[in-house]
Amino acid sequence: MRKRGPIALLTDFGTRDPFVGVMKGVILSIQPSCQMVDITHQIPPQDIQEAAFALRSARGYFPRGTIFLCVVDPGVGTTRRPIVVESGGQLFVAPDNGLLSLVEPIRKMARIENKQLFLRPVSRTFHGRDIFAPVAAHLARGIALGRVGPSIRRIRRLDLPTAIRKGGQVLGEVIRIDRFGNLITNLRPGDLPASSRQVFRVGRKTIRGISRSYEEGASGEPLAILGSEGFIEIAVRDGSAMNALRVRRGARVTAGSEEPKKK
Amino acid sequence: MRKRGPIALLTDFGTRDPFVGVMKGVILSIQPSCQMVDITHQIPPQDIQEAAFALRSARGYFPRGTIFLCVVDPGVGTTRRPIVVESGGQLFVAPDNGLLSLVEPIRKMARIENKQLFLRPVSRTFHGRDIFAPVAAHLARGIALGRVGPSIRRIRRLDLPTAIRKGGQVLGEVIRIDRFGNLITNLRPGDLPASSRQVFRVGRKTIRGISRSYEEGASGEPLAILGSEGFIEIAVRDGSAMNALRVRRGARVTAGSEEPKKK
Amino acid sequence: MRKRGPIALLTDFGTRDPFVGVMKGVILSIQPSCQMVDITHQIPPQDIQEAAFALRSARGYFPRGTIFLCVVDPGVGTTRRPIVVESGGQLFVAPDNGLLSLVEPIRKMARIENKQLFLRPVSRTFHGRDIFAPVAAHLARGIALGRVGPSIRRIRRLDLPTAIRKGGQVLGEVIRIDRFGNLITNLRPGDLPASSRQVFRVGRKTIRGISRSYEEGASGEPLAILGSEGFIEIAVRDGSAMNALRVRRGARVTAGSEEPKKK
Repeated sequence: MRKRGPIALLTDFGTRDPFVGVMKGVILSIQPSCQMVDITHQIPPQDIQEAAFALRSARGYFPRGTIFLCVVDPGVGTTRRPIVVESGGQLFVAPDNGLLSLVEPIRKMARIENKQLFLRPVSRTFHGRDIFAPVAAHLARGIALGRVGPSIRRIRRLDLPTAIRKGGQVLGEVIRIDRFGNLITNLRPGDLPASSRQVFRVGRKTIRGISRSYEEGASGEPLAILGSEGFIEIAVRDGSAMNALRVRRGARVTAGSEEPKKK
Repeated sequence: MRKRGPIALLTDFGTRDPFVGVMKGVILSIQPSCQMVDITHQIPPQDIQEAAFALRSARGYFPRGTIFLCVVDPGVGTTRRPIVVESGGQLFVAPDNGLLSLVEPIRKMARIENKQLFLRPVSRTFHGRDIFAPVAAHLARGIALGRVGPSIRRIRRLDLPTAIRKGGQVLGEVIRIDRFGNLITNLRPGDLPASSRQVFRVGRKTIRGISRSYEEGASGEPLAILGSEGFIEIAVRDGSAMNALRVRRGARVTAGSEEPKKK
Repeated sequence: MRKRGPIALLTDFGTRDPFVGVMKGVILSIQPSCQMVDITHQIPPQDIQEAAFALRSARGYFPRGTIFLCVVDPGVGTTRRPIVVESGGQLFVAPDNGLLSLVEPIRKMARIENKQLFLRPVSRTFHGRDIFAPVAAHLARGIALGRVGPSIRRIRRLDLPTAIRKGGQVLGEVIRIDRFGNLITNLRPGDLPASSRQVFRVGRKTIRGISRSYEEGASGEPLAILGSEGFIEIAVRDGSAMNALRVRRGARVTAGSEEPKKK
């Protein structure tokens, strides 16, 4: 058995209740030297889409052998399946509810069924503690993926918003808003109309061109910038684009190009 | 000296100020390889009862040898005693103010008096840094419990709310509300009236029966479920029971049984 | 190469977005066994002064060899320099924007220029991930400070508020407010007028004398106390001085002495 690790945790449990600490206690009871890293526990309650995006943002920066322990699980206690997925030398332990929609390419998938790995009795409401954490810890100890349960052929994938071309424009949307109030869109540079005069429309604002730093903007005015995750972001220098533009997740973002004005 | 660990931290310090980081720095200065886990630092300021419940929820999931470093300490700088308690192969370092009320059975208790273990000078306002963290770190290094100070015979225990039988009913209360707005009561299944038709009353709502998963409820309607800590919880599918029922901690929860209706 | 560590993280990234987890993933990809401690990630967005004060509060409690990875970086993507500073056997990795103003005495300073240490491509908006975290991880592996880039002679320092003597009084201010609503001033005991009858004025309140514990105060009344960081703090027993006195960071605090009354 070759040890794996670290275990990277992603949940909607928050940090006020002892849920996350309890999962870590379970992990250390099985694999005492296990290294653990929090990705975030502030996923809005039951927001599977936000969790899927956060996981996509984070996973590529973790080493091979990392086990992602992902628990956003509104269906806990029902028939939704607990699963493990392997991709790029990393493992993902999660409920099969779309949370792993953006994990690709997948090399192996298994349904978690081996009750010997669980905490007993298994509660009806906290499979993070009773199933997902102990399975992740056993995987960190090095058990083969086949030990958790039988192979499966397909996992559930969410229908996530993608950018759409329409005439000379591209219609995207705000898929996430970060702590600074930056609006992360689903527009990649390659999606944009080929033009040296790109124009973005968000809320009631029009933004011309793509800036190279936050400080290129005038104070309080929105700008477009290539974000660290490879998507166009709308930001406001020294402020919050969310507040300045009064938009929420899901807001339409239109990218077009400006015709050179005639003389 | 046999090393102990991990150190599990439980405080009301929040994560905005550097208090928790400072305690961890102190620990690593004494025991460089020490593993540390946060249970929570979001205990409401000075809320000893909430800390006692969180500790009860968490401790059973941590390995033997764990040192619980618990600091909710409104009496810092006064004559309240700093103590260490041993229970089930785990150690608990805390002020003697009721925080350890639910740690049982206790095998040993000591008053912390050995100033050689402290950071000096000891401040008047941050014994977490100057007394509790260094003592926990020295215990992690393996010093005997007797090294921290003399044995004591009794610790302070809070008068915590327990369920009361009254006629055919059981009167309980909401002792904690979690991040999801679930209401954790102090009712255990064994406390409830023997009946196949249990009825719970909370706020202005009546709930019939105990559900097996959150998804058994109609959207927006409250349900009762056996929570992961062994207590009856009141929840709302895809929502917050706290908001739906407009109740707070301490709210009365009555459990009874419904008479079969006559034909 | 002598290994260093732990890495202590101080940012304004919050814990909702995956930014901090991503930086930790980057660190573990370079230095798999690295120990990491969070000082705080709740520095108000872009508040360099607050970060400088938090770092001063924390650093003295961390062991020699600690690498402080500090990212509050409104100028990311502009010409502000990334730097590493050595002080007291500890290393500080940060943007050169004043964040390290209170790190003293400094023994060595270097500008970070060695692109071989960076993640590539370097984004315009997240140097925490692409420059600061990998440089900190390489330093933890033990590379010499000279490897990150050329020596520099000076770092940027903020003009931070200091206490001023004026007549028999000392004029200070509230430099930080902690989670409990305690007001941390920039007054040290040595700054105060020599007197056995010290008087503090904050907001509309007058406070006489320095208390020895929070519990010396009457409930709801403000008191002055020597805080754990060596500064005078204004606190309210079992409450929040910020709320009781309705003051904010920057509020004036005047220290004087009371004349003995004539008979």
